[in-house]
Amino acid sequence: MTSVPAAPPSRAYRRLGVEERRAQLLGAALTLFAHRAPDDVSIDEVAVAAGVSRPLVYRYFPGGRQQLYEAALGSAAEQLTLCFAEPTTGPPTERVGRVLDRYLGFVDEHDAGFSALLRGGSAAETSRTSTIVDGVRRDAAEQILLHLGRGPGPDQVPAGPRLRMMVRTWIAAVEAASLIWLDEGKQPPAPDLRGWLVDHLIALLAATATSDEETASVVAELVGQETAEGPVGRLAALVTPMAELLNP
Amino acid sequence: MTSVPAAPPSRAYRRLGVEERRAQLLGAALTLFAHRAPDDVSIDEVAVAAGVSRPLVYRYFPGGRQQLYEAALGSAAEQLTLCFAEPTTGPPTERVGRVLDRYLGFVDEHDAGFSALLRGGSAAETSRTSTIVDGVRRDAAEQILLHLGRGPGPDQVPAGPRLRMMVRTWIAAVEAASLIWLDEGKQPPAPDLRGWLVDHLIALLAATATSDEETASVVAELVGQETAEGPVGRLAALVTPMAELLNP
Repeated sequence: MTSVPAAPPSRAYRRLGVEERRAQLLGAALTLFAHRAPDDVSIDEVAVAAGVSRPLVYRYFPGGRQQLYEAALGSAAEQLTLCFAEPTTGPPTERVGRVLDRYLGFVDEHDAGFSALLRGGSAAETSRTSTIVDGVRRDAAEQILLHLGRGPGPDQVPAGPRLRMMVRTWIAAVEAASLIWLDEGKQPPAPDLRGWLVDHLIALLAATATSDEETASVVAELVGQETAEGPVGRLAALVTPMAELLNP
Repeated sequence: MTSVPAAPPSRAYRRLGVEERRAQLLGAALTLFAHRAPDDVSIDEVAVAAGVSRPLVYRYFPGGRQQLYEAALGSAAEQLTLCFAEPTTGPPTERVGRVLDRYLGFVDEHDAGFSALLRGGSAAETSRTSTIVDGVRRDAAEQILLHLGRGPGPDQVPAGPRLRMMVRTWIAAVEAASLIWLDEGKQPPAPDLRGWLVDHLIALLAATATSDEETASVVAELVGQETAEGPVGRLAALVTPMAELLNP
């Protein structure tokens, strides 16, 4: 006789601890908020997605959709911040490329929610949600500065105002490019977009070095860690004929 | 005997036509919204600033502060769009520099309101206000593309997707730089910021030309209109040693 295994208990009836239940509700909410604007997601849908009752959702999130949205956003922000961590060894353009690969993976996964959040105009957007988003931008800037040899640590060189503005500006450009990418049906393919964003950073470093001494010394240090076949080499090879044309 | 001129009628008692009165209320609102977040401006203050009664403001703007804010924003958007117009003659970097001078003048004049609007998190922000802001961004992109030899007109060459993404991304970078500039007490001085933003655009063009044929041919055309002393020449002169270092 073959023994028939007992059916696993239905997900709806599993008893979870407080933290486990909270995480489960948050996971369900995050999945819904990832692909829709916050105003289009109802508590009923979150309850159905998590396989629980509506009152249970309210027991964990008495503030309803707004509280759930802010908690889901906070959890997404933590995930995104983890994407930025990258060891500070090897050619800096390759490191930035890997960070961008993970970032674009996140954007791909949270497409409509990412777009709705950054586009604004939703009733769920408050000064608290803006603070969460700004925190992610700040973390991203600190991580990029680290790969440029500047850091907030006690044994590190802090970045000057122009270099800092440059990095924050590039991050805004990356965000804008991600939104355009989503609008255009995720075209060009993510690896092409990543390559172009890396080229953008190198070009911006070169441009900033023309008027800022600190950036000029950062560029000199970074170039030494790059290869002729990498993006720095490609850009330099392109700009040289421009120089010859203008300075015959 | 010297004749004493009659005192002009007090502003509060002047009878204005409907359009004239509307424009006056809008002007008063715009001045208040320029330097404060929308949630911090009351209808009473607008009435005081315009020298009229509170019910009169409501007669023209029955939707109250929200309607007045959207109307003021629409009027500011029109002003800003006018800043972008620039004849398509002379070195392109000088044209872009003049557009940026006028844009930074606008940012300087509408500092806190500009910052509050773009930072988000205000209750006055709706899909209508986002649409107004996006319209300005679109106009800005069309104007910049015009100076790159690409236009929407029937006898003009339309820009390809990569060049269009490049320009929109640069505009996002300009916006981010303006917000940082306001945060840092309008440092560096506006002409330095303008110069850096022009350098940024040139560098971005050069970087995009490494992977996009259309941009490469735009760059070749533009370089011919520039001078060795201008920003294109400066950037090329800086990048040449990078090329030599990587391709000995």
